[in-house]
Amino acid sequence: MALPTAKPLQEFGLIQGLKRQFAHHAPGLVHGIGDDAAVVETSSPRWWHFTTDLLAEGIHFTLTSAAPESIGYRAAMANLSDLAAMGAVPRYLLISLAIPKKVSRPQVYGLYRGMMKACRLYGAALIGGDTSASKAGLFLSITLVGTTAKRRALFRHGAKVGDQIYVSGTLGDSLAGLRLLANSKTPRSSQEKRSQLSRSHRQFLIRRHFHPTARIAEGQWLNNGRLATAAIDLSDGLSGDLRHMCAESGVGAEVEIESLPLSPACRAYANAYGVSPIRLAITGGEDYELLFTAPPRSRRALERQARARGYRITRIGTIRPKKFGIQMTSHGRTQPLPLTSYEHFR
Amino acid sequence: MALPTAKPLQEFGLIQGLKRQFAHHAPGLVHGIGDDAAVVETSSPRWWHFTTDLLAEGIHFTLTSAAPESIGYRAAMANLSDLAAMGAVPRYLLISLAIPKKVSRPQVYGLYRGMMKACRLYGAALIGGDTSASKAGLFLSITLVGTTAKRRALFRHGAKVGDQIYVSGTLGDSLAGLRLLANSKTPRSSQEKRSQLSRSHRQFLIRRHFHPTARIAEGQWLNNGRLATAAIDLSDGLSGDLRHMCAESGVGAEVEIESLPLSPACRAYANAYGVSPIRLAITGGEDYELLFTAPPRSRRALERQARARGYRITRIGTIRPKKFGIQMTSHGRTQPLPLTSYEHFR
Repeated sequence: MALPTAKPLQEFGLIQGLKRQFAHHAPGLVHGIGDDAAVVETSSPRWWHFTTDLLAEGIHFTLTSAAPESIGYRAAMANLSDLAAMGAVPRYLLISLAIPKKVSRPQVYGLYRGMMKACRLYGAALIGGDTSASKAGLFLSITLVGTTAKRRALFRHGAKVGDQIYVSGTLGDSLAGLRLLANSKTPRSSQEKRSQLSRSHRQFLIRRHFHPTARIAEGQWLNNGRLATAAIDLSDGLSGDLRHMCAESGVGAEVEIESLPLSPACRAYANAYGVSPIRLAITGGEDYELLFTAPPRSRRALERQARARGYRITRIGTIRPKKFGIQMTSHGRTQPLPLTSYEHFR
Repeated sequence: MALPTAKPLQEFGLIQGLKRQFAHHAPGLVHGIGDDAAVVETSSPRWWHFTTDLLAEGIHFTLTSAAPESIGYRAAMANLSDLAAMGAVPRYLLISLAIPKKVSRPQVYGLYRGMMKACRLYGAALIGGDTSASKAGLFLSITLVGTTAKRRALFRHGAKVGDQIYVSGTLGDSLAGLRLLANSKTPRSSQEKRSQLSRSHRQFLIRRHFHPTARIAEGQWLNNGRLATAAIDLSDGLSGDLRHMCAESGVGAEVEIESLPLSPACRAYANAYGVSPIRLAITGGEDYELLFTAPPRSRRALERQARARGYRITRIGTIRPKKFGIQMTSHGRTQPLPLTSYEHFR
């Protein structure tokens, strides 16, 4: 089974503590720890963006349930998605791997093939890295470097009261795909449910899980056109990532439940398995869609341009004052957006 | 026991294979995999240098034999040393950590304290990273970003036949320190030998092992003054790293054994334990000194400037044609420089 990569809350506490103690301002540093990427200013007309992920066997992936190429592809997409959320162009990557004895040379090449397949889609070139033996599991570290024009990037902290909230693509597909993969190992009762789901829907959801698409083009469009006030990528799920964005922007948010974009496959899955598709959309992680905000006056331009470019974006709510909190409305009723994270390996 | 970080030969094979298959030329890429750092050209007047290391518990360090702060300090110095060998100014770093349950919060802070203590000495600022749980050991990934002026960096590939070979500092101290640490756990016979070694010599060698000094100032001096034709840092030991430099430069080398710079502590250690100090100097890794080459006409300027700045450099041999191989001469006799790597954990 491929595993979700969201962090438990105590990890956020650790990162905040480390940031306070060790990350101070530095010459040229535009934005350090706390966004999808760190941003650095140089004497060139560009800003440089840096993002890094460390993936651990048994926590973020297992080698028994996914092909190495899929693991690599997905890992690179997660990193590329961080650059997408900044509106950056991916340029270079460094890959480090700690390899236990049980992992074969073809498996290592498979991982690299997957990572490079994802990175080549967006023009990022492998420039360095490190390999090490490992006494225990396989560990994979990816560092990506991207660029934007100077003083032009999307941050989590720019959302203003009254801004409209948008997402790209559809939500909840990756979690539905993950659950299908898990269920495929359990016996009859879920086999029956599975039979209610068409083969193409099943394949769509599993592909969305294993082969997500980083919204690099959409991010650059929003950034270069000055269309968005803030952005983040959906790795932890709408509920978690909206919370991060609101915390950084010092605002609240109202999500209109009926507006959440769902794929036909996700609806069919929810129907077959008797679960709420809304819950999948709110709490499901790793869709790697963009969540962004834009002033109401941009609405028409945004929607027209998105249509012309073939980008799917959906307005899902409105930024509210901080004291409003993070709420969802459905048929006129307002209640807190559930924080519950989706299933976690630990 | 703190462990050496040198790679077994099969790892070089893996890296070469991955490089051939996945690392192609890319816009702005000056130098990719195969030097101490990757170098990127931007529209700014600077070159950007990227280097990354992945350290695994039980391979590169153990938590039972060194304080987390020492492990962190040493790990960061190893990375800083890669920038020193390029002649670069350290600017930014990203730190990723996979943390097993057995590792406490104070141990994590200790690691960061050690890394940041080393990095602050040279002005590198923490700008990002990642933390993850780990099912197995502790894994630490460091990515460092540095700069030089455009078209101005030290590479491994610039050594020319007739160039003189130099090293900074003294050689073999770190391996002697490592052996002292290992011996401190064995009984009487080595206790006796230990008693022949003064406390200050013992402390010096252990400090050289745990608290090496990246030769950042020396690297910048060589680079900015156009004094060196090639450079590499001594992480795998003189024999291994000279081989890397010669392979990249397409040359051979002659090392004059009597010239190798040894510290009084290393000599005293060799004397007390009945080992060859020359062998320590040739095969001992992790001294993090610079190995560099310079044309004979620069000799006087080099030595005068080094004296004036208080840098210790020593001429240890001459670059020869490739067919000469990598030889050492001692009292008029010439023989191949032993490749034998120093003791290895695996």
